Amino acid sequence: MAVPPSTYPRRLLPLFLGLFQAALLLFFALFVTYDEPSVQAEDTNLVANQVYSTFPFFQDIQVMLVVGLGLLLTFLPRYGFSALTHNFLLLNFSMQWALVLQGLLQHLHHGQIHLDLHKLLISEFAAVTVLISVGAILGRVSPCQLLLMATCEIPIYLASEWVIVTCLGVLDVGGTITIHVFSCYFGLGVSKALFRATQQPLHPKETPTASSDLMSLVGTLILWVFWPSFVAVLCQPGDAQHRAILNTLLAMSASAITTVVASSLLERDGKLSLGHLQNGSLAGGVAIGVVADMAMPPVAALALGSLSAMLCVLGFRFLTPLLGRKLTLLDQCGIHNLHGLPGILGAAASILAVLVASKDTSGSQPPQLSPAGGNASGVLEGQWGPRGQALCQAVGLAVAAGGSLLAGLLTGAALRLPCLARPPERLCFDDSLYFKIQDQAESPGPDSSAEEGALALKEQV
Amino acid sequence: MAVPPSTYPRRLLPLFLGLFQAALLLFFALFVTYDEPSVQAEDTNLVANQVYSTFPFFQDIQVMLVVGLGLLLTFLPRYGFSALTHNFLLLNFSMQWALVLQGLLQHLHHGQIHLDLHKLLISEFAAVTVLISVGAILGRVSPCQLLLMATCEIPIYLASEWVIVTCLGVLDVGGTITIHVFSCYFGLGVSKALFRATQQPLHPKETPTASSDLMSLVGTLILWVFWPSFVAVLCQPGDAQHRAILNTLLAMSASAITTVVASSLLERDGKLSLGHLQNGSLAGGVAIGVVADMAMPPVAALALGSLSAMLCVLGFRFLTPLLGRKLTLLDQCGIHNLHGLPGILGAAASILAVLVASKDTSGSQPPQLSPAGGNASGVLEGQWGPRGQALCQAVGLAVAAGGSLLAGLLTGAALRLPCLARPPERLCFDDSLYFKIQDQAESPGPDSSAEEGALALKEQV
Amino acid sequence: MAVPPSTYPRRLLPLFLGLFQAALLLFFALFVTYDEPSVQAEDTNLVANQVYSTFPFFQDIQVMLVVGLGLLLTFLPRYGFSALTHNFLLLNFSMQWALVLQGLLQHLHHGQIHLDLHKLLISEFAAVTVLISVGAILGRVSPCQLLLMATCEIPIYLASEWVIVTCLGVLDVGGTITIHVFSCYFGLGVSKALFRATQQPLHPKETPTASSDLMSLVGTLILWVFWPSFVAVLCQPGDAQHRAILNTLLAMSASAITTVVASSLLERDGKLSLGHLQNGSLAGGVAIGVVADMAMPPVAALALGSLSAMLCVLGFRFLTPLLGRKLTLLDQCGIHNLHGLPGILGAAASILAVLVASKDTSGSQPPQLSPAGGNASGVLEGQWGPRGQALCQAVGLAVAAGGSLLAGLLTGAALRLPCLARPPERLCFDDSLYFKIQDQAESPGPDSSAEEGALALKEQV
Repeated sequence: MAVPPSTYPRRLLPLFLGLFQAALLLFFALFVTYDEPSVQAEDTNLVANQVYSTFPFFQDIQVMLVVGLGLLLTFLPRYGFSALTHNFLLLNFSMQWALVLQGLLQHLHHGQIHLDLHKLLISEFAAVTVLISVGAILGRVSPCQLLLMATCEIPIYLASEWVIVTCLGVLDVGGTITIHVFSCYFGLGVSKALFRATQQPLHPKETPTASSDLMSLVGTLILWVFWPSFVAVLCQPGDAQHRAILNTLLAMSASAITTVVASSLLERDGKLSLGHLQNGSLAGGVAIGVVADMAMPPVAALALGSLSAMLCVLGFRFLTPLLGRKLTLLDQCGIHNLHGLPGILGAAASILAVLVASKDTSGSQPPQLSPAGGNASGVLEGQWGPRGQALCQAVGLAVAAGGSLLAGLLTGAALRLPCLARPPERLCFDDSLYFKIQDQAESPGPDSSAEEGALALKEQV
Repeated sequence: MAVPPSTYPRRLLPLFLGLFQAALLLFFALFVTYDEPSVQAEDTNLVANQVYSTFPFFQDIQVMLVVGLGLLLTFLPRYGFSALTHNFLLLNFSMQWALVLQGLLQHLHHGQIHLDLHKLLISEFAAVTVLISVGAILGRVSPCQLLLMATCEIPIYLASEWVIVTCLGVLDVGGTITIHVFSCYFGLGVSKALFRATQQPLHPKETPTASSDLMSLVGTLILWVFWPSFVAVLCQPGDAQHRAILNTLLAMSASAITTVVASSLLERDGKLSLGHLQNGSLAGGVAIGVVADMAMPPVAALALGSLSAMLCVLGFRFLTPLLGRKLTLLDQCGIHNLHGLPGILGAAASILAVLVASKDTSGSQPPQLSPAGGNASGVLEGQWGPRGQALCQAVGLAVAAGGSLLAGLLTGAALRLPCLARPPERLCFDDSLYFKIQDQAESPGPDSSAEEGALALKEQV
Repeated sequence: MAVPPSTYPRRLLPLFLGLFQAALLLFFALFVTYDEPSVQAEDTNLVANQVYSTFPFFQDIQVMLVVGLGLLLTFLPRYGFSALTHNFLLLNFSMQWALVLQGLLQHLHHGQIHLDLHKLLISEFAAVTVLISVGAILGRVSPCQLLLMATCEIPIYLASEWVIVTCLGVLDVGGTITIHVFSCYFGLGVSKALFRATQQPLHPKETPTASSDLMSLVGTLILWVFWPSFVAVLCQPGDAQHRAILNTLLAMSASAITTVVASSLLERDGKLSLGHLQNGSLAGGVAIGVVADMAMPPVAALALGSLSAMLCVLGFRFLTPLLGRKLTLLDQCGIHNLHGLPGILGAAASILAVLVASKDTSGSQPPQLSPAGGNASGVLEGQWGPRGQALCQAVGLAVAAGGSLLAGLLTGAALRLPCLARPPERLCFDDSLYFKIQDQAESPGPDSSAEEGALALKEQV
């Protein structure tokens, strides 16, 4: 499956992407327009207010995904360009692909497709699932494999989200179940099917260095700061959004402190692990999403943040090595600890919250993730009451985890296609397979001073 | 006091933090709720507008504190993880602790505590004082010492702020006196009491490298960009906030240019000092806070920005070495130059501004920092006129500087407790005391190529 | 012209900047005030809404220019401090200088100058031209030369913008013609006149290293994320602004993918070039500016983004080497590929868009860049219809490119003045000429351990 670097095939990537861009242009030319400009002053004000109320959140999310998540993935010291670039490329590719698929569905119902900021945001949320799933196999796959994975994952996500939110009426304003749990088990499924029973040995280039870990920590901090925007962007304006922001802030703050406690207690010498910090600090944001706008006391957000950080650190310490040994499951970035466990915890909390909350408050937050539905949950709620809703949350969790695991296994099998050019073991975690790096140019010429020679030497290293 | 690294005690930190989180959960469970959801559409709009008008400022401030200030502190080349992580941990701890203390005060008066974004913001402002004070002793203290310092500083800050803003009616919308001057002299007091008469020799790990200085400069630029949000967030919406933003922008712009002038003139060979740039560029933001929303001409903001940058650079060049020699005062990050001197300058400017401004304009900006008071200054103003207000500003400055210095000295004495595990001199400024760093893992195994050996060697270095 | 480093003159920079700051203070003292505070509640709300609708965009642009562009320029491995600091200094200097010049023009007409956020924004846009032009000569000029260049470029830009937007009525909401094309050819003119026929050999310090290229890529990503704010900030609130944001997002997304395709196809071994990624991903943002708010279908934005990225990559691959060989033209950062070619493409697209669009839609977006005019284009439109407007766009492009090239050549000739202290060839691309760098301090003393010696050695390198 792996090929020698000299004959590593490189034409598939531009071919695939080029054809995709051409098809996208054709699709947009045929079907996509903007809304008609509003004629009356009132409508103009309405549009302006929508822009002012959504765009800052949207920009925050873009920073999270492009800069924050990109930097978080640069912990592999010789894979920084690949991590940043593949993350960036996949975000754009998946977002466009989600736009097309959503557009097609809409086209079947309404004819022309009207593009607006909200639809872009929904597509961006779909793209997030791909960016998370990649974490399971980062560094050991080719860009073509990643693109094929995105091609498969986006429609599966849209279907899964439609089942969970529109059909089942699951309440999940921050995407805990629909995005985090889904993408985690999808990624693990891909990893399992792709690498099968061969346990991957520790690669010499896999160990972070001080400077790569520092960049990664900066990425975590950027994600931490902007996470409330991600959770709250699709909330109902007003109290629900205000509460979602506060709950997320509390949960993330509790996560930050609990991570330090847990990491310090679990390591034998009491030192902090950077991997724990980089992930545990964010676990609260994953867990809180599904209950962020529900009527629950602030202490619940704190407790959820603490518990999820604890679970995340425990997962890194015990579960990941166990899964690696027993199931020969590769989870490069530990997405199961950051997205899987806290996501399941959040889903459990939402069941509790629905059961505890009085009927009228829990029903007042219709799910916002679905572009089509929206009042489905209200209907379910009306029919079945809190117990029915709690059951829905549980079924939704099962669908998200089980369906995505299955789909991920199938997708992973497809990624084994030899033409997708999985990188050879020796060149895993290595930028030089995909990027022109200035190694040769830096070799000191005869006229360069000793200092410059030393510089070049250092850079070659 | 200092202990050998092998027996360095590490259980106090998780114990202390763990107990604190548990107590916080209990406190929140007993006393804290959210506001009742608004029932009428008008109220919903009101809440939504409050979110949209506050949240972008709040996010800017979070970026400043978590990313900007964190990076600024990474100028110590082998202490980057500690700088970022301790800053992050202290922000969260202090914010939660301030929430509790403010909540307790409120509870005594009103029973239940209603949490909202504004209260979180006020707590965040309280946490800023801790983050600034740390700069005096960065790298030579343990996390436990930092947490104890935060535990003491937050209640003292709240008391000081109550005296200055609510009792004295000092106008200080951007926290120049209440935050910057206070935290500077508190930090210096701690430093003096903690290290006493023993002058700290220059540590070999204390000198910045090119890459650590570059990260730090990026941190400065992030702080520089978002500073107007910090100053203006608590202003009255409308003209006062608009003016505060403009004044801050002008002051910071003048600071940036004057820093280059002053640094270039003061260094013998005319080269720029990175320490000057990293701090001087921000001095204008410190000084302008207290007058940002007052009725004064734009030239005053420019002049204040220029003067404060000049003072800051002069302080680094002459005052810090002098204080180190004469008073054996350690000020690791030069907080006296960035927060002390420009803060005093700003307070002096506010006295001038109050005296010069006509009575009705200076009175039109009630102080916004106090959660309880708010119209106290108007009363004072009404009673005593501009001269009374000017006197109040001067007394407020004296309280902030004197009170905090005294409190800092007492706190510093408490930090000498042996159980707090001050790091041994040899391991100051060294991440490896607190973090699992991949030194061992990187030593090249027998099967690794020469290139990988060189990589590991480089990383070990 | 070049001088030996020991006698390198260093007093001109602080002298020039100091005098400028003094003159600025005088000017502001004499002529500049803020608006009168609004008295009625309605006016206060209006001001508050203006702040909330402009300030987040303004902050985004500040992040782009100070952090994003600064980091993008740090690809020169030993010139990071200079790149960040000179960019920061020039932004502040140019912004203040543009404020003065705009103020003077306004003063002649209206007496007192009223400062507001919008005027600062306009000045910031003027400063952008300088920051772009610098890219042509980065690393081979002194700060004094840069300041003189800024001093010349700002008034020329204001004049050019007045001719293009106010007189010709060119529609250019995102500054494609007035800012990008103008500053590109100005910079190239300066470069040509400054370095004349002597082709600059490849400098050993000119080659990026992995870590400098990574920082630069992060800068690109920051610019990419915030670019929609830059294009849309001056649009009419409502539909036009909404459309401008969407168009920019689509164009940038298409650019990102097409850059990967083009770079991969053009390099012999199919690897990606970091230079292509750092620039091509942004080309769509340059091209879309001039048509962002026009009534055109979304597919046009995608196509424009794709085409401009292709042009940009092709320019790097073929045109830049050609210009270097044939015209001995130095374009250090490839600004012709990022700003020139996509700018011309965007201008051509605007001609097409004006011709295709029906008369009433293209006329409904008056240009917003001009502080004075505003309805000029409406008049022209009314007189001449779409064809006249298309002609105006073409003439505007010619004025922007031709006028700025000529002005740049003259400015470049002025920069040859010996007193401006162009750095000697050996010290080009080297921070140590302008910054106190800790080389000496790091040489290991006799008492330092081997580990610290190795640290110091590494840092000296």
